[in-house]
Amino acid sequence: MKLATLRIGGSTVAARIDDTTATVIDGFSDLGTLLGADDWKSIAEGAHGTTIALTDADYAPVVPRPGKMFCVGLNYASHIKEMGRDLPTYPTLFVKVADALTGAYDEVVVPAYAAGELDWEAELAFVIGKQAYQVSEADAADHIAGYSVINDYTMRDYQYRTLQWDQGKNFEKTSGFGPWMDTDYRLGTRIETRLEGEVMQASTTDDLVFKPAALVEYISHIVTLNPGDVVITGTTGGVGHARKPARYVGDGQTVEVTVEGLGTVRNKTIVK
Amino acid sequence: MKLATLRIGGSTVAARIDDTTATVIDGFSDLGTLLGADDWKSIAEGAHGTTIALTDADYAPVVPRPGKMFCVGLNYASHIKEMGRDLPTYPTLFVKVADALTGAYDEVVVPAYAAGELDWEAELAFVIGKQAYQVSEADAADHIAGYSVINDYTMRDYQYRTLQWDQGKNFEKTSGFGPWMDTDYRLGTRIETRLEGEVMQASTTDDLVFKPAALVEYISHIVTLNPGDVVITGTTGGVGHARKPARYVGDGQTVEVTVEGLGTVRNKTIVK
Repeated sequence: MKLATLRIGGSTVAARIDDTTATVIDGFSDLGTLLGADDWKSIAEGAHGTTIALTDADYAPVVPRPGKMFCVGLNYASHIKEMGRDLPTYPTLFVKVADALTGAYDEVVVPAYAAGELDWEAELAFVIGKQAYQVSEADAADHIAGYSVINDYTMRDYQYRTLQWDQGKNFEKTSGFGPWMDTDYRLGTRIETRLEGEVMQASTTDDLVFKPAALVEYISHIVTLNPGDVVITGTTGGVGHARKPARYVGDGQTVEVTVEGLGTVRNKTIVK
Repeated sequence: MKLATLRIGGSTVAARIDDTTATVIDGFSDLGTLLGADDWKSIAEGAHGTTIALTDADYAPVVPRPGKMFCVGLNYASHIKEMGRDLPTYPTLFVKVADALTGAYDEVVVPAYAAGELDWEAELAFVIGKQAYQVSEADAADHIAGYSVINDYTMRDYQYRTLQWDQGKNFEKTSGFGPWMDTDYRLGTRIETRLEGEVMQASTTDDLVFKPAALVEYISHIVTLNPGDVVITGTTGGVGHARKPARYVGDGQTVEVTVEGLGTVRNKTIVK
């Protein structure tokens, strides 16, 4: 089952995405709110509200205001090995704030002062569906509602102004997130970034060092993960900043991030 | 004027703190919600709801669920200079999630696996009272609702497991925040940490390299600061981890952080 948050008439609604239509899930203003209901899955399956043709759907960030979002640093084994590094003992975590999210097909507007080193990061995200505190890896699957796609859009110059990356990861409405969350996704499909159609990153999601279940265990031993919280699992090789010569996103250029079997976010950058 | 969030009967309310009583500000479940009202200041000044003796007040985190919280790394000039470092060009930013907050006088319960290197960080925090995007330092004061005290409680072992600090800064309900927000505070008073009554950190808040107005300018050029968002301005010398020998918070020990003229957070640590 695919679930999304759609914009309708200046507001948003939670919706189930079927083959050609979206069905509004009455009573829930977005997917995060829906996931707060214990029986969200059966509510979504049984929804029979207004339907919208998918061709008319306007996708908000799939969870527009997560209570929190933890991002994982370098987490693809083949990329870590090709860099000559050892696999890490612990996941590197940083935080993305909700204001940094944008819809899967929105234009990303970047102020000129921050547009010097715009970079992509294809990432698999997962969304929490049931509160998790000190949960073991073996029990983690029960706490994951589903999976989605995010471009962890990064201002490399801001990221490296100091030792802490967060300021380069949190520019206003820059990280395309969606278009939907899929409750049935399984690891092991291709993840890819294209800049103006040219493939920049490609890997498979089962190459993750810390897989979603391990991340639920690790993070839930720090802090409670609540329904609607998001974990962004890290990116693979091929980011623009590490290329020789470096490649960055320019004004008017479009970045697409696809996780095969899951979906694509496609955001055009406008520098203003 | 002092404003707070108080726990009453399993819920919370926004309240004005006067000399001996707290007055409930009807219609607002916490200070963050109150700050979302354009005329929050006059609403708070004019409130005449139920009163509670301050001796009976139970303080929640002053803003229990900030939309976001940016923390600043090393930001006290005298401490940076004594370490032989140059003053930084840019503020170091990381993020604290709302779940890491606790009330000003709450017990902090730490799981045994995370209790190896528990440390204090006395910090001045400020709360946003009016939306700010691309605001200049000169105009920043208009966007700050007031000031409060926080212990940026830190698990040093987790902080240094990887290059990114966030995981050591976000343990469940560990950062005492409050007891109130003061709309009239001015920089330049003593900031101090005491462990079991022994002074561990002491400085004055006008020694900040990046002062609140500069931080509003810097951060609001990255992302919109909304009412109820919080900025935590950094700590000074004297943290336990940097002492020779190192000092950490033990089971049953109490840490107090005081900003003179503003208030004190006092949290006893319980290791479980």
